[in-house]
Amino acid sequence: MSKTVGIIGLGLLGGSLAKALKAYTDYEVVGYARRQEVCDAAIQDGVVKAAWTEVEPLIENSDIVVFSLPPDTNARLFTETAHLFRPGQVVTDVSSAKENFVRAVYSSIPKGTIFVSVHPMAGSEKGGYEVSHKNLFKGMGWIVLEDKASDVYSEEVAQELAEMGRAVGSRIEFVDIYAHDAYLAMVSHMPHLLASILTQVSGGDELGELRMKLSAGGFRDCTRVAGGLPSMWREIIYGNRHNVIEGLSQIEFEIQRVKEILSQEDEGQSLETYLERSREIRGKLPYLTGQIKNS
Amino acid sequence: MSKTVGIIGLGLLGGSLAKALKAYTDYEVVGYARRQEVCDAAIQDGVVKAAWTEVEPLIENSDIVVFSLPPDTNARLFTETAHLFRPGQVVTDVSSAKENFVRAVYSSIPKGTIFVSVHPMAGSEKGGYEVSHKNLFKGMGWIVLEDKASDVYSEEVAQELAEMGRAVGSRIEFVDIYAHDAYLAMVSHMPHLLASILTQVSGGDELGELRMKLSAGGFRDCTRVAGGLPSMWREIIYGNRHNVIEGLSQIEFEIQRVKEILSQEDEGQSLETYLERSREIRGKLPYLTGQIKNS
Repeated sequence: MSKTVGIIGLGLLGGSLAKALKAYTDYEVVGYARRQEVCDAAIQDGVVKAAWTEVEPLIENSDIVVFSLPPDTNARLFTETAHLFRPGQVVTDVSSAKENFVRAVYSSIPKGTIFVSVHPMAGSEKGGYEVSHKNLFKGMGWIVLEDKASDVYSEEVAQELAEMGRAVGSRIEFVDIYAHDAYLAMVSHMPHLLASILTQVSGGDELGELRMKLSAGGFRDCTRVAGGLPSMWREIIYGNRHNVIEGLSQIEFEIQRVKEILSQEDEGQSLETYLERSREIRGKLPYLTGQIKNS
Repeated sequence: MSKTVGIIGLGLLGGSLAKALKAYTDYEVVGYARRQEVCDAAIQDGVVKAAWTEVEPLIENSDIVVFSLPPDTNARLFTETAHLFRPGQVVTDVSSAKENFVRAVYSSIPKGTIFVSVHPMAGSEKGGYEVSHKNLFKGMGWIVLEDKASDVYSEEVAQELAEMGRAVGSRIEFVDIYAHDAYLAMVSHMPHLLASILTQVSGGDELGELRMKLSAGGFRDCTRVAGGLPSMWREIIYGNRHNVIEGLSQIEFEIQRVKEILSQEDEGQSLETYLERSREIRGKLPYLTGQIKNS
């Protein structure tokens, strides 16, 4: 009989994973949500077999437990419930910053319980079960975090979770768990802050309102992520702040370089070369090259 | 009988303006393009009554001449052809950076010829007549640049060009011509460079290719404009570089502020406040609030 996946948190990611597993795999799915309405909605939608506003029954009834709450919340909740996990049971999570959750798991996971972390690179500036959908993962990256040195890690489970990613339409990447947060700081967390910074510099002062009227599609897209949920991004970015600060320092260094380029009396030739280089790098983004579907 | 608008340059902006004027106004439209194929295509599409690979006949046959080439090219071309303009004839342009073109016009415009500059805030990272379309201006801003002190400026013509913008579906903003480039540096040119900078910092080193694989929709959108035509953006940004450098300096200052926020031992409370503020500012973008159609 098919395994049961228990998803803790039925927001955008958890809800979408539940819907995708239901639609594209044989897994049984059960869920936990803080609010009863969300549990009811998920049951009514036929997305989960059962849903609870407590985590105990979910852990009790699941072979694979997926923590889908914000990173620090996941960490706190795991620490509280670690004693409930059984040998052979699988713990995973889908958050975008791993450091705090991984520390919590390694410090209190029971002997024999397996932990392999996963990061589906999908999201939206909107959150909540209402906006979750079964195709959120289609064409996006699905990172399986490797920690071969750890005895709670299982190569077999890593392969099973990779297969789960493929089943919901993602392209799989295996990344070392300790390198993951540094990479994500550079492609997600620091960019998110840059969008917020750009928004405040351009729109935050007394001329901001007029400037916003004078902005267009470029500004809209550059700053889209700044519309994300502050409470969630606070946990992601703050939990990875050392890498994020390093990323911001690299941006500062590069801004200096660009200011020098702009100061050259070469009619913009060096600037054009710089823009060419950026365009070339961006042109290789896997989800633009048709190598995979752009979402 | 209806006036004739002559559009110099039938690329994304010029071509779209030609198509929009044809579709939504009574103006006759004629065009200039460097390449004969583009002239032929525009005639075949019924977008222009006539099109030439020389500007002389266009100036000869137009009541309103719209310079739609990159800013410095517009400036060079105007200087070469200024002597051809007649009293009462109207010169305008649609570029995103005004300083160089305005200087060229004011230094050589014949007595009696009228100049009112316009900036339709529409664009795309793609260029060329092939991608131009009649609805490019729908719901976007259309800035009419005021220079009431100048004797080549005409309030009546400014109103006519504003009406032209309304006719093609834009919302009109009147902005002082000398303030324009500073505003645009902050909402368009500096953000464009930030996207290029982010692309190179995240994707330009030996780990860049892996990082790009780990990036997702947020990174894609933050960097979209970095896919823009380097030769065009070189002219726009370099022509406005003093304002752009000022914008980059403000970003540097704000990055320092954010690094301090990240360094506070407050579990991210100040970070959340910062993100809230950015989200609030961005939420007021006129083309997001439903105040006008999002493009």
